[in-house]
Amino acid sequence: MKAHRSCSLIGILICLTAVLLALPASAEEGMWTFDNPPAGQLQEKYGFTITQQWLDHVRLSSVRFNDGGSGSFVSPRGLVLTNHHVALGQLQKVSTPEKDYATDGFYARSAAEEMKCPDLELNILESMEDMTRRVQDTVKRGMKDKDALAARKAEIANIEKESLDSTGLRSEVVTLYAGGEYWLYRYKKYVDVRLVFAPEQQAAFFGGDLDNFTYPRYDLDMALFRVYENDKPVESRNFLKLNPRGAQEGELVFVSGNPGSTERLSTLKEIEVQRDVIIPDIIKLIRRRLDVLKRYAEEGKEQARQAASQTYGLENSLKVYLGEYEGLLNKNLIAKKQKEETGFRAKITANPESARKYGKAWDEIAAAQQKLVARYKESRYRSLRASRLASLALSIVQYVAEINKPDGKREDGYHDSQLESLRFQLFSPAPVYPQMEIRLLENSLQEAMDELGSGDPFVKSALNGRTPAEAAKQVIEGTRLDDPAFRKELVDGGQAAVNASTDPAIVFARSVDPAVREIRKWFEDNVESIMTSAGEKIGQARFAVYGKSTYPDATFTLRLGHGTVRGYAMNGTEAPPKTTFYGLYDRSIGFGGKFPFQLPSRYVDRRDKVNLSTPLNFVCTCDTTGGSSGSPVISKEGEFVGVIFDGNIESLVGNYVYNEENNRSVAVHAGAMIEALRNLYDAADLANEMTNYE
Amino acid sequence: MKAHRSCSLIGILICLTAVLLALPASAEEGMWTFDNPPAGQLQEKYGFTITQQWLDHVRLSSVRFNDGGSGSFVSPRGLVLTNHHVALGQLQKVSTPEKDYATDGFYARSAAEEMKCPDLELNILESMEDMTRRVQDTVKRGMKDKDALAARKAEIANIEKESLDSTGLRSEVVTLYAGGEYWLYRYKKYVDVRLVFAPEQQAAFFGGDLDNFTYPRYDLDMALFRVYENDKPVESRNFLKLNPRGAQEGELVFVSGNPGSTERLSTLKEIEVQRDVIIPDIIKLIRRRLDVLKRYAEEGKEQARQAASQTYGLENSLKVYLGEYEGLLNKNLIAKKQKEETGFRAKITANPESARKYGKAWDEIAAAQQKLVARYKESRYRSLRASRLASLALSIVQYVAEINKPDGKREDGYHDSQLESLRFQLFSPAPVYPQMEIRLLENSLQEAMDELGSGDPFVKSALNGRTPAEAAKQVIEGTRLDDPAFRKELVDGGQAAVNASTDPAIVFARSVDPAVREIRKWFEDNVESIMTSAGEKIGQARFAVYGKSTYPDATFTLRLGHGTVRGYAMNGTEAPPKTTFYGLYDRSIGFGGKFPFQLPSRYVDRRDKVNLSTPLNFVCTCDTTGGSSGSPVISKEGEFVGVIFDGNIESLVGNYVYNEENNRSVAVHAGAMIEALRNLYDAADLANEMTNYE
Repeated sequence: MKAHRSCSLIGILICLTAVLLALPASAEEGMWTFDNPPAGQLQEKYGFTITQQWLDHVRLSSVRFNDGGSGSFVSPRGLVLTNHHVALGQLQKVSTPEKDYATDGFYARSAAEEMKCPDLELNILESMEDMTRRVQDTVKRGMKDKDALAARKAEIANIEKESLDSTGLRSEVVTLYAGGEYWLYRYKKYVDVRLVFAPEQQAAFFGGDLDNFTYPRYDLDMALFRVYENDKPVESRNFLKLNPRGAQEGELVFVSGNPGSTERLSTLKEIEVQRDVIIPDIIKLIRRRLDVLKRYAEEGKEQARQAASQTYGLENSLKVYLGEYEGLLNKNLIAKKQKEETGFRAKITANPESARKYGKAWDEIAAAQQKLVARYKESRYRSLRASRLASLALSIVQYVAEINKPDGKREDGYHDSQLESLRFQLFSPAPVYPQMEIRLLENSLQEAMDELGSGDPFVKSALNGRTPAEAAKQVIEGTRLDDPAFRKELVDGGQAAVNASTDPAIVFARSVDPAVREIRKWFEDNVESIMTSAGEKIGQARFAVYGKSTYPDATFTLRLGHGTVRGYAMNGTEAPPKTTFYGLYDRSIGFGGKFPFQLPSRYVDRRDKVNLSTPLNFVCTCDTTGGSSGSPVISKEGEFVGVIFDGNIESLVGNYVYNEENNRSVAVHAGAMIEALRNLYDAADLANEMTNYE
Repeated sequence: MKAHRSCSLIGILICLTAVLLALPASAEEGMWTFDNPPAGQLQEKYGFTITQQWLDHVRLSSVRFNDGGSGSFVSPRGLVLTNHHVALGQLQKVSTPEKDYATDGFYARSAAEEMKCPDLELNILESMEDMTRRVQDTVKRGMKDKDALAARKAEIANIEKESLDSTGLRSEVVTLYAGGEYWLYRYKKYVDVRLVFAPEQQAAFFGGDLDNFTYPRYDLDMALFRVYENDKPVESRNFLKLNPRGAQEGELVFVSGNPGSTERLSTLKEIEVQRDVIIPDIIKLIRRRLDVLKRYAEEGKEQARQAASQTYGLENSLKVYLGEYEGLLNKNLIAKKQKEETGFRAKITANPESARKYGKAWDEIAAAQQKLVARYKESRYRSLRASRLASLALSIVQYVAEINKPDGKREDGYHDSQLESLRFQLFSPAPVYPQMEIRLLENSLQEAMDELGSGDPFVKSALNGRTPAEAAKQVIEGTRLDDPAFRKELVDGGQAAVNASTDPAIVFARSVDPAVREIRKWFEDNVESIMTSAGEKIGQARFAVYGKSTYPDATFTLRLGHGTVRGYAMNGTEAPPKTTFYGLYDRSIGFGGKFPFQLPSRYVDRRDKVNLSTPLNFVCTCDTTGGSSGSPVISKEGEFVGVIFDGNIESLVGNYVYNEENNRSVAVHAGAMIEALRNLYDAADLANEMTNYE
């Protein structure tokens, strides 16, 4: 499944290291920005003229799920369709020990039953403005990399603040082509989002972790929300009309969504560091955390329920990283990257002027990567991310300190333009599971001790003479941060209130804050600033050599992909373009109905009511990655024909290189949704809302 | 599909080169001879005591299809079940331009409608007798390899002749463990075999060449024959009772059949010659012949019908060789083989006595392989095998010459004990397609010219100044050999009649005969004799080191395999232990019903009559290879639970090494046969015959 996996696990530090290599994209590759769609290719290959009107309609129908996914409006009354697995976090948060909507599904038979999500923010990309000159011009000749980075950051904060003040819209400057371009994206933001429908997890995620990232598949991985404003459904003028016939084999289709991150344009040195240092370490970290959660889940049904959503996310990430790692061990892939980089650099050095301007960038990046490796462990393990309460505590401690600084000097995440969304998360009423928190925090501290040694300042101050188990127990059992009102009280009380607090989680966060800041500052000065400067150079070099014929690496911002519905060679034969409900029953019975291939009871009871030849899933060549989950698949007529929910196993290496031969996105077919709503879920009203528009 | 692919394409010359390397088999590996089943393993791992009675019952229920496949008795009235693709050659031979039973299927609704096959011989292994001492003792100390080979061959001919004379049974001495053992196998032989039932090829071979050698699968690859004697169905006292419930996941099952050939015990040098010389050449040869047949088939429906069976066989072989070749390029496999061989040789050289006796065998084989490579092309391309008429002509020319020699000095294939079966083939009334023959012979001659040059004696005498096209046309159009009576007349007329014949095919065969004999003789003296002597040494060395804890390479003789019904890891997930009729419909619709995924019309019309949850195919870990097609899968109660028809793509490298992790045999489930006979084919009487035994 293509859940957006980057930010919680890789962390901001590592996300920033992706820098541009770049050859012109060909064929059906590419996650294009909406200002630069591959119009020529579409015209030439498919005779399709992409108009501004078409682009605007698709963009304004597309929805970003801020906790990591995509979706789209599918009715004029604010109905938003995404994946069950994108909705999973919210499904868990609205569940209770008595009612497990994540597992059993949910259906609101009336507006009154629609259930408000505690902390779900949806964004619509309202406008895009090129700010490249403004950001790049703040860097003056002869500036040190460190000062240049500060100048850029300050200017970006200015742009965002100005935009917020003048429009009231969520405003973000997006770094594209590793600094080759900077764009201001403005979002319409919705925070009253209500759950309307979700199937049983066993229908959405049939085949479980085993079938995840594979195809052929048989998953009804969908969920429906409704967006409210002023306690009324929004009038969503821009929405995608659902076509239950879906798209045919060979048909041109588009995907509009928010791919999270890719490393397509990274230099070979960065890829080698990923392969040799970062990914093996992340795999170890995920396995360790999964062990903790699995042991916890074994203690009882309620514990299993609490651990389910995070376990799902970690298993998903593990399969991604294992797939990427496998890909990086492939010598052909590395050789291909090497060849691309050598070719690009040769073009740069062939011209004395460009050689002077850009030629050293690769060596600078290599040097910065060496530095990164030297303190990689601290950047990874000085972290409280695993425990929600501990990480809330640290956010509060940093929040009250950062907002006292001028906007341009604050740490990322605390700029004025970001505060509203941040407060929405800080004060979320979503439930907290203290016993699970204790296990996760204990593991996190033990892990930090194992990896950094007990002499590390972070470890020393976090433990303060206690064992990891004692520290975790004291912090979690003693804190009142599970109460959103208490969090608000602290934030509103500002620096003074936080400094005076004796809440053990706040005390704990205050004590580790300096060590966390130290490594972040070191990283900024020694890695990020150099990567940014060198990245900008390579970005410019690329434009100089190739023009704007390529697309930037993914940045969890809106992108357009295109391709065709098409099977592929696999397992000595071919995978079909689509699957049907027949296949769902085949695979379940083939495994004797055992986990993870059991069917929800309604699928057994109502089998004869379903038209089994209805297409269930399909594959297309559109280029997607984690974060694309929930993206609508769109016909050239602008209709909704399916929803992306996964990629095949061959797509995992797509983080580094796209291969049209066998890289496929996997989608739920629009026809399956209507068939299931009508004949399995007795939800004809929803099917009607998506197909009959009065 | 696991059609026996060795003899027509690889040729006898190459078959002989497989020589023993050998480590003790473990786990579920092994194609064991019935005199040496892995009783200890079965007892230990499964608590199953294999009795002589059980073994005898299974052996006498098992049937060898002499044109390359396996089968079993499934009723007390002589009903034999095998695969559609094993029956394919006969289905084609009983078809006419008006009635294409190969494509459309066949069902005899009464005994009168059962259709006699023109040249199908079935064999039942009646007895086995160890002749190792007798054969090995003919070789006297100090004999040259060449003379030793002649002595062995003479003794083998003697044994076979004696046995035939005393029992009337087909008698064959089988070389096992590359000469480590020699066994006399006696067969009860049936030549009145009548076709009873075959489904449409599109049901038997759904997914075609694409899905061939893959899994999950959805093929009803079955056919039924009835064995007659004296114009009455034989009373088959030994038969397997069909259990429509089949075998469950994890259940112990057996496979009894005739695997064709493997190279598991070959030395590394032999494997390298396969990889670097022989297999790439065979792939080229098959592709060339397939091109000829495809062009011919494009000329019309009748041409397509004529070419179908041979095309199927060649595509099947091509997929096998490509899979094997792929496997041989895998460095891990070669490293594993290297390690095994090094370990074995170290054990031999550690002891001065065994070092002296066996130590040089590997180098001798390596030298013989070098020689083989030197004249490989001639051994491959001095051949008329592609054209049935040309090869009949050569067989007749050689037959009348060979039978004038003492039995022990004749070429293989012309010993007294083999003559009856040979004459059955020589005088077969099966139809001949002259236009197709011309194309195949022309290609064969052109290919010989391309590969050997126009100066080669074979090419020179075959063409005799003509172009390949002219020669082929003159030979095929002018010959009367399409008439079985004419063939009989010539054979009965003996050497004089053949020498006097002016039939252009006979003239042609007489002219190429010396060059064919020359390379065969050279091969015997320079390769086979050395391989046989050295092979015997390694075989004995192996017994000295490992005892009789392994099984010999496959020799198209009866073997017993065992294993469990079990899925396996593939495509990033798992393949299920079984599939169902649901999956058949899923895969067909998934491809839009396009070739090779269209369904026969009865499957569409009668869909609602079929219990779609009936298991259709399943996989087990039993070790099989080409020739195992049609082998019954047998429960420990001795019941028929399925029929082997294929291996998965991962099994192709099984020619060299068995990997229990993912090597799987693919079988049709017994339940699917009964369900289909009853509800798709209105053949309840056959279903009853196989399930109710009065």
